[in-house]
Amino acid sequence: MTAGPSEISPRTLRAMSAQTTYPWTSEFIDFYQDTEKKLAQILQTRNDIVIMHGECVLGLEAAIASTLNPGDKALVLDSGPFGKGMGAWIKMYGGEPVYLSVEYNDAIDPADVKKKLDEEKDAKLLTVVHSETPAGTINPIKEICRTANKRGLLTIVDAASSLGGMDIRPEEWGIDICVGAAQKCLSGPPLSVMSVSKNAWQTMENKRNPLRFSYLSILDWKENWIKKRRFPYAPLVSDIYGINEAATEVLEEGMQKVFNRHKSVANATRTGIQRMGLKLWPKRTEIAADTLTAVTVPKGINDQKVIDLMLERYGILIGRSLFELEGKAMLIAHMGYNATLANAAATLAALEWTLSDLGYRRS
Amino acid sequence: MTAGPSEISPRTLRAMSAQTTYPWTSEFIDFYQDTEKKLAQILQTRNDIVIMHGECVLGLEAAIASTLNPGDKALVLDSGPFGKGMGAWIKMYGGEPVYLSVEYNDAIDPADVKKKLDEEKDAKLLTVVHSETPAGTINPIKEICRTANKRGLLTIVDAASSLGGMDIRPEEWGIDICVGAAQKCLSGPPLSVMSVSKNAWQTMENKRNPLRFSYLSILDWKENWIKKRRFPYAPLVSDIYGINEAATEVLEEGMQKVFNRHKSVANATRTGIQRMGLKLWPKRTEIAADTLTAVTVPKGINDQKVIDLMLERYGILIGRSLFELEGKAMLIAHMGYNATLANAAATLAALEWTLSDLGYRRS
Amino acid sequence: MTAGPSEISPRTLRAMSAQTTYPWTSEFIDFYQDTEKKLAQILQTRNDIVIMHGECVLGLEAAIASTLNPGDKALVLDSGPFGKGMGAWIKMYGGEPVYLSVEYNDAIDPADVKKKLDEEKDAKLLTVVHSETPAGTINPIKEICRTANKRGLLTIVDAASSLGGMDIRPEEWGIDICVGAAQKCLSGPPLSVMSVSKNAWQTMENKRNPLRFSYLSILDWKENWIKKRRFPYAPLVSDIYGINEAATEVLEEGMQKVFNRHKSVANATRTGIQRMGLKLWPKRTEIAADTLTAVTVPKGINDQKVIDLMLERYGILIGRSLFELEGKAMLIAHMGYNATLANAAATLAALEWTLSDLGYRRS
Amino acid sequence: MTAGPSEISPRTLRAMSAQTTYPWTSEFIDFYQDTEKKLAQILQTRNDIVIMHGECVLGLEAAIASTLNPGDKALVLDSGPFGKGMGAWIKMYGGEPVYLSVEYNDAIDPADVKKKLDEEKDAKLLTVVHSETPAGTINPIKEICRTANKRGLLTIVDAASSLGGMDIRPEEWGIDICVGAAQKCLSGPPLSVMSVSKNAWQTMENKRNPLRFSYLSILDWKENWIKKRRFPYAPLVSDIYGINEAATEVLEEGMQKVFNRHKSVANATRTGIQRMGLKLWPKRTEIAADTLTAVTVPKGINDQKVIDLMLERYGILIGRSLFELEGKAMLIAHMGYNATLANAAATLAALEWTLSDLGYRRS
Repeated sequence: MTAGPSEISPRTLRAMSAQTTYPWTSEFIDFYQDTEKKLAQILQTRNDIVIMHGECVLGLEAAIASTLNPGDKALVLDSGPFGKGMGAWIKMYGGEPVYLSVEYNDAIDPADVKKKLDEEKDAKLLTVVHSETPAGTINPIKEICRTANKRGLLTIVDAASSLGGMDIRPEEWGIDICVGAAQKCLSGPPLSVMSVSKNAWQTMENKRNPLRFSYLSILDWKENWIKKRRFPYAPLVSDIYGINEAATEVLEEGMQKVFNRHKSVANATRTGIQRMGLKLWPKRTEIAADTLTAVTVPKGINDQKVIDLMLERYGILIGRSLFELEGKAMLIAHMGYNATLANAAATLAALEWTLSDLGYRRS
Repeated sequence: MTAGPSEISPRTLRAMSAQTTYPWTSEFIDFYQDTEKKLAQILQTRNDIVIMHGECVLGLEAAIASTLNPGDKALVLDSGPFGKGMGAWIKMYGGEPVYLSVEYNDAIDPADVKKKLDEEKDAKLLTVVHSETPAGTINPIKEICRTANKRGLLTIVDAASSLGGMDIRPEEWGIDICVGAAQKCLSGPPLSVMSVSKNAWQTMENKRNPLRFSYLSILDWKENWIKKRRFPYAPLVSDIYGINEAATEVLEEGMQKVFNRHKSVANATRTGIQRMGLKLWPKRTEIAADTLTAVTVPKGINDQKVIDLMLERYGILIGRSLFELEGKAMLIAHMGYNATLANAAATLAALEWTLSDLGYRRS
Repeated sequence: MTAGPSEISPRTLRAMSAQTTYPWTSEFIDFYQDTEKKLAQILQTRNDIVIMHGECVLGLEAAIASTLNPGDKALVLDSGPFGKGMGAWIKMYGGEPVYLSVEYNDAIDPADVKKKLDEEKDAKLLTVVHSETPAGTINPIKEICRTANKRGLLTIVDAASSLGGMDIRPEEWGIDICVGAAQKCLSGPPLSVMSVSKNAWQTMENKRNPLRFSYLSILDWKENWIKKRRFPYAPLVSDIYGINEAATEVLEEGMQKVFNRHKSVANATRTGIQRMGLKLWPKRTEIAADTLTAVTVPKGINDQKVIDLMLERYGILIGRSLFELEGKAMLIAHMGYNATLANAAATLAALEWTLSDLGYRRS
Repeated sequence: MTAGPSEISPRTLRAMSAQTTYPWTSEFIDFYQDTEKKLAQILQTRNDIVIMHGECVLGLEAAIASTLNPGDKALVLDSGPFGKGMGAWIKMYGGEPVYLSVEYNDAIDPADVKKKLDEEKDAKLLTVVHSETPAGTINPIKEICRTANKRGLLTIVDAASSLGGMDIRPEEWGIDICVGAAQKCLSGPPLSVMSVSKNAWQTMENKRNPLRFSYLSILDWKENWIKKRRFPYAPLVSDIYGINEAATEVLEEGMQKVFNRHKSVANATRTGIQRMGLKLWPKRTEIAADTLTAVTVPKGINDQKVIDLMLERYGILIGRSLFELEGKAMLIAHMGYNATLANAAATLAALEWTLSDLGYRRS
C-alpha cells in the first residue's frame, strides 16, 4: 500500500511478459496509438497524449525544458516538497521562479493565486501539484488553472499521484500540460503520461530555441511520432504493453466507478485512522487526497519501526513520508488496483496490531 | 534477426513478469547492485556502471550533456549516420564539432585520427561509434581511443550494437564513457548501460555548471545512487529485472564464448551471403561487424519487398538500413540470444528462397 | 479464500510459464527428483513420493485401485462426504466397505475405531479423511492410523486440504498412503502428491493382478520412474515446474512456521466469526481445521446471496459447502499463500459488511 | 524439433501464467465450453469433445476402459509399437485382441482389414494409430474406419501425433473415438483431446457395468459436465488456459493452411534428408507422416551421439525412435508452432554439420 510505485496488477504484469514485437511495424504503431487513445479516455481529454519513456520526473522536467524561455517568470505553487521542487527546474532552464507557499499540511487557496497573479503580471507559467504525495493533500487545480489559463499563463500540473484515481479535466480546467505517472493509480510500469494542449504545442514551437533531438523534448514526439508515426527513439515496448493493459483494466471498470472506489476507500481509511485514535496529517478532511492517506506519526512512536514491523508481522507495506515531512507522517496509499475496501480493512487491522505490539495506547 | 531491438530471450521476459518490489527496500538495492556487477563483467571493466533509464540515445545525450562545457571543441568521427549524429548534440550543448569523415562503407583509420588531433590541439572530447549499425562496419576503437585518451581528450564510445557481442576493454583502450544498449546483444529491454571512468566523473564535477537534478544527469547517479544508495527517481523495476536476467544468461555462457559465437555466426552469414552471389556492404571483411551483417541490395531489387515477403512466407524478419543508407543495404542482425548457426542457416535459406520467389538470379 | 483450488502464488505462476524442456533429458529428470525431495520435506517423510498427474481424486482412486484385491474388506471412516465417498471406490474395485460414521459436524473417535476393528478382524484396509473440507473438521489420524497400522491394515489418508498446512507424519503415525493436493495448502497447480510406504509397495506387488500399464497404477511409477528414471508417460511439465516452485516457497518459510501461520490465522478467523455473532459449523473448536473455517449459515440467510454479494461488492470469494452440507455451511479457506492475518481481517470485514448489507442482525 | 512433447508456443505459455480463476464459476464454465468449441473446429467434427485431464495415454486407456465389455473381441491394427500397445489394454480390461500386423516401416492396407473382418465377424472394436510416431508412418484411417464402422465395429483412433497437423474427419470417416494430444501439433500442454460419437456414448451407457466415478470414465464427463455443467473433479485450469490459446492460434491461421504448412515442411524435410544421402525410414514416401520425419540411422553412426552433439553444438534437438525402433530411426518432428520452412532449413543444416563433425560421408 505504498505510493511509489504501487503494485502492478497481475494482468498488467502478464501483458509485459509478451515477446516484444519489432517496434517499427504497423502492428506496433497501431498498438501504440490504441494505448494513447485509452490514456486520453483516462485523462478525459481530446488534447494530444504523449508518453515520455521514463518515470514521471522525466515528463515534469521535459515540460519545463520544452516550454520555458530563459528569463521567463513562473509562479510556483508550493504546498509541499514536490510543488516547491518545480522551482529548481525553472531556475536550471533559465527562468525566474516566484513562490506562493502554504504550510505543508494545507492547500493553496485559489484566491491567493489570483492576488499573486495581480502582482506578477508578467508571469508566463504556473506550476502546481494536484496531489502532493508526501502530505496527502490536494490542491484545487480546477479553480487555480482556470484563473491562470485565462490570464494567458501556460499551466503545468503534476498529477503523478492522482491521475487515474481522481477526476481531472484538462480542457475544462485550463491545464496545458498535465503530467501523470502510470505506476501509481494506473498500477502500471513507471512511465510519464501527459496531455498536451494546442497552446502548449505553440509555446514549444515558438520557443526561441525549440528543444529538438533530445530525450527531454516533447516536441520530438509531435514532429516525429504524431505527424509521421516514427518514434524518435526505440520505445520501451514491454512497458507500453503494460500501460495499455493497465489502461484497459481501468477503462473496463469505468472512470466514474474508479473515482468513486478511490473516494470510498479513502473515506473508510480516514474513518478507521481516526477511530483508532490517530490523526490525519492534512489540516482538513476536504483537502485530503482520495488516493493516499497521510497519517500523523503519534508522539513517542518511530515511524520506521511501525513500517518495518507491520511488513514483517502482517505482510503489508505502508510508506514513510519524504523530504521535509520525513518522520512526521506515514503514507497509506490506496491507488488503482490496490484501492479496495478489503485492502483498507486489512491495512487498518495490521496498523492497529502493529501499534499495539509496539505498546502504543491511544490517548 | 533485426538490430533494434533484438528479440528478448524467453528467460529474460519471464524475469520481467515478476511482481515488482518496492524499489526503496534494501532487497531491491542489493539486486540493483548485483545487476551493475554483472554488467561490469560484461563490459570487462572496473569503472563504475551507470544504467540510464531510457533507450541508448538517453545515455549518449547524457554523456554529452553531463561533460561538455559550452565552447568545447569535439572531434566527431563520422563513418556513418550515428557517428555523424553525435555532432548535433555537441552543437546543442554549446560545443563545436569537428568532423573526421569516411565513406559509409568504410571505417576510420587511427592514423587519420592522430593527424586530425595534431591539427585540433584544443579538442576536449572525441566521439566514436564502435559498430555503426546502418553500415555493418566496425571502427578500431582500441587504437583510436588510446591515442585520444593519451592526449587528454575525454572519449565517448557508442557501443550500442556491439556491447555484449564483441570484445571491449574500457580501461585498457582508454574509453571514458562507453554507452551500450541492453536491447541488442544482451537480448534485454531497452535501457542505456554505461561505464564511466574516474576521468569522466571529474569532468562532470568540474563542469562550469555541473548538470544535476536532471533526467540527463549522469552525475545524479553518482551523488545519489553510488554514494548514498538512493535512486534519483523511481527506477524501471521490471526492466532492471530483465537486464539482470539477460546479463546472467550472457555470463553463464562466458564472455569469450559469447564473443566467439558472434564471430562464427558472422563468418557463416558472410560466407553464405557471398555464396548466393550477393555483396557485403562493408568495403572489407576485416571491418565487418560480428553482430550484424549489412548486405548490399542487389540492383533491380526492392529491399522492402524482400523484407516483407521473407517475413510473410518464411517468418524471418531482417531490417532495412537507415538514414543515408536506406534502400542501399539490408541488415541481418545476429545479436545475443539470436546469434546461432542454426538461425543463420534458416535466415540464409529464407533470404535465398525470397530472392528466388522475386525472380532474382545471381549474375 | 476458497478451498478448491486456492489461488496459485504469483511466483509459482511465473514458474509455470517457463518454456517446457523436453522431459526425457537428464536435466528434467534431476528437476523432477528435486521436486520429489522437496515434497518429501513437506510431507515430513522418508517414504517414496509419487506425483500422480491429475487432481487429488486420481491419487485417491489410484490408491484403492492399486492395492485392493476383490473381496477385501475395508473400514471406511465417515465423518463427511469425502470420507464416505471412499466406500464407492472400494465397491467399484470389488471390495467390501464397512462404515464407521459420525454426524457431519463431528470427528471420528479413535476409541470407536478400535472397537470397530475388534469386530471386523479381517479388514485389510482403512480409509480416513484428515481434513473433511465441506465440514471444516479434522479427524485424529495420528491415533487412528497408528491403531490400524499396528493391526496390519493398510492405511490410506486423504490429506487433500491439510497437506502443507498442518502437521502430518506418515511413518510415525502409521500412514501407508497419504494423498495430498498441490492446489490447496501448497498454492500450486492441481496434481496429486502422495507418500507411499514400503508396506504399500508390497501390497501393490503382491496384489493378485498387480495394476500395471494404467493411468491409475501407482506401481508403474515405481517400476518405471523410481527404478529406471523413465516416466511411464509424458509428464505435465509446466505443472511440475509449478509444484517445485510452490514447494520451494513453503520450505523457504519452514514447515513449523507454516503450520503456526495456519494455526494463528484459523484462530483469528474463528474468533472473528464468533465475535460477529455467527456460529462455527464444527461441534467443538478442537476439531476445527487450521486450513479452513466452516461457518454455520445463519437462519433466514441465503448462503449463495452472501457469497455473490461479498464477491461483487468487496472482491473476496468464499465458498459454499458441498453435498449433504450445501446450504448449511459456508467455507472460508485459509490455505497456503492466502493464509495471512491481513487476509483474515479483510475477509471478516467483508463478511460483516455483506451480512449487514443483507439486513442480517446478530441475535 | 521433437515429438513428445513439442515446444509450447510463447503465446500459449503466457496464457498458462494467468492467475487461475475458481473453476466453479460461470465465467470459467463458459471458457471451458469455448475451448471445446475451438477443439471441435480443429477436429472438424460435430461430435462431442471431451478433454481428459492427463496425457494422451489417459484418453486411450479411458476409451478402452469405458467401452469394452469383458470377452469382447477387438481388431488391433499393428504397424508400430503404439498400434500394438492397444492390445495390452484390451487384455487388461478383459477383451480379446486379434492383431493385424505389418512391418514397422509399412502401413496397414485397408484391403487386409476387410479380409480380417470377414474372418472375425464377432469383433466389436477396432483400434488403429493414425500417425505411428516411432516410425514416421501414416495409416489410411479414412478407408479403414469407414469399413469397420459400416460393419458395426466401434472404432478408436490414436491421433496423438497427427491431430492438428493433418486432415481428420471423424463423422465422414467413421471414427467413434478419436484421441489426440494437445502437446504435439497444437503446441499446447499435455492433455488428451477427444471426439466422441453418439455410437460411442451408447456403447458406454450400454456397457454391462458402465464405468462411472472414475478418473478413467469418459461417461462421467457426459453425465456431469455435458449434461449438468459440473466438472467431475477439479480441472487443470492453467492447462485449459493453455489449450484454449493453442487452439486459438491454430484456428487463426486456419485448418487448411495449417495442414498445407505441415505438408510443405514435411516435403522440404524429406527432400533435404535425401539430398544429404540419408534414407527415410518409411518404405514409401506416400505413407510418410506430414508431422514428423523418421530418418534411418546410417550404418556406423550412433544415433544418440548425433542427437547429443547436434544439441550441444547447434542448439537443435531431434529425437530417438522408441521401443522396437530405438537405434534404427531418428525422428525430426515438424509439429505445430515448430513446423516452419525456416526451422526445417536450420535442422537440416545442423544435422548435416553434425554428421560431418562425426566423420560421416555420404556413400
